[in-house]
Amino acid sequence: MNQIIGTPLFTVFALVLIAESLKTLFLGTATAYTRGRLKLFLNQEDADWLGGRAVDVEHPTPGRLFRAHRNNLENLLPFIALGGLYAVSGASATAGMVYFIGFFVARAGHTVAYLGKRATLRRNCYSLAWLLLILTGLHGGVAIVGHLL
Amino acid sequence: MNQIIGTPLFTVFALVLIAESLKTLFLGTATAYTRGRLKLFLNQEDADWLGGRAVDVEHPTPGRLFRAHRNNLENLLPFIALGGLYAVSGASATAGMVYFIGFFVARAGHTVAYLGKRATLRRNCYSLAWLLLILTGLHGGVAIVGHLL
Amino acid sequence: MNQIIGTPLFTVFALVLIAESLKTLFLGTATAYTRGRLKLFLNQEDADWLGGRAVDVEHPTPGRLFRAHRNNLENLLPFIALGGLYAVSGASATAGMVYFIGFFVARAGHTVAYLGKRATLRRNCYSLAWLLLILTGLHGGVAIVGHLL
Repeated sequence: MNQIIGTPLFTVFALVLIAESLKTLFLGTATAYTRGRLKLFLNQEDADWLGGRAVDVEHPTPGRLFRAHRNNLENLLPFIALGGLYAVSGASATAGMVYFIGFFVARAGHTVAYLGKRATLRRNCYSLAWLLLILTGLHGGVAIVGHLL
Repeated sequence: MNQIIGTPLFTVFALVLIAESLKTLFLGTATAYTRGRLKLFLNQEDADWLGGRAVDVEHPTPGRLFRAHRNNLENLLPFIALGGLYAVSGASATAGMVYFIGFFVARAGHTVAYLGKRATLRRNCYSLAWLLLILTGLHGGVAIVGHLL
Repeated sequence: MNQIIGTPLFTVFALVLIAESLKTLFLGTATAYTRGRLKLFLNQEDADWLGGRAVDVEHPTPGRLFRAHRNNLENLLPFIALGGLYAVSGASATAGMVYFIGFFVARAGHTVAYLGKRATLRRNCYSLAWLLLILTGLHGGVAIVGHLL
C-alpha cells in the first residue's frame, strides 16, 4: 500500500476527496442553518424547540441548498468508487490527475452555479463532471481487468 | 496491495462497483433529461432558461426515475463500504463472488422492476440485495477482526 | 496492505463502518415496512398490489424514518471517504480511534434522538459527528501530503 500512498496521483485523489467531502458537510449544515434562520422546519420538535413551524414543502432558500447538497452527494458517491478504483488500478497517473482535478473544478463550478441560479453554467459543469466520472470508471476498469490477464 | 488487486475477487468487486456506479450516473441524468422533456423543473432558473415551469411536487415520470436513482444510491453506498472491506479482508473468495454477483443481479432486477412498475419483483430484488449486503458485512467483519487476534 | 489490515486502527474503522452501514440498511427497510403497515405508498403499483393508496407527501411516521435514514447516508458517505483515507494515511492511531469511536457514538445518539423526537440531543450529536469528520479529513490530509514530501 505504501507504494500507492506516497504517489502524486493518490495525493491528488485524496485532496479532491477531502475537499469534496468538506464541501458536502458544509452544504448540509448550511441547509439546517437556513431552516433555523427562517424558522421553517421539517420536524415538529424543532419548531417547538426553536419557535416557528413545521412544513412539508420547503421554503425556496433551504430547498435550493438541500438540492445543491443532494446533487453533491449523488456525484461524490461514484467519485469515491470510481476514483478510488482508478487510484489503485495502476493506470496512467497523468490521465488520472486530469480526471480528478477536472472533476474537482467542474463540481466547484456546479455548486457556485447552483447557489447563484446560473442554469447554463450548472448544466455544463454537471455534464463535464459526469463525463469525467464515466472516463475514470472505464479507464480504471480496463486497467484492473488487465492485472488479471 | 498488488497481491489484492490482481485477484479474481477484487476484479469482480471492481466490475460490479463500476457497473453500479455507471447505472447510478445514467439514472441521475435520465431524471434531469425527463424533467427537461416535460418542461417541469425543480429550479425557477431552469424554467426561465428552457421554457416551462418550476414545480414543488414532481411529475410521476421523473419522480419514478428519481426514486429509482435514490434507491440505487442508498444501496450502492453500503456496497462500497461492505464490499470494499470484504475485498481486502482475506475472507473466502468464492463466498465473496457469490455476494457481489448476487448483489449485481438483484440490483439490476430492482432497477428494471422499478422502471417497469413491477412491485413484487422490485420487493424481491430489494430484499435479496439487502440480505447479501448484510452477509457481506458480517462475513467481512469476522475476517477483519480475525486478523487482529 | 496486510500491514494496515491487521492493525487496531483499521479494525476499529472497519467495525464502525460495518455498524453504520447495517444501521442504514435497517433504517431504509424500516421506512419501507412502515409505508406498508400504513398502506401509504410512493408508487401506485405498490398501492395496487398491497391495497392502500399512493401519496406525494409522506405520512409523518415513515417521513421521520426516511429523514433519519437520509441523514445517516449523508454522514456515512463522508465517513467512508475521510475515515478510509485516514486509516491508510499513517496518521496517529490513537487520534484515529478517538475520531472513529466518537463518530460512532455521536451517530448512534443522532438516530436515537431523531426517532425519539429529542431536538436538542439530535443537534448536539449531529454537530459532534460533523466536527469529528472535519478533524478526520484535515488530520488525514496533512498526513497523506506528508508522504509526498
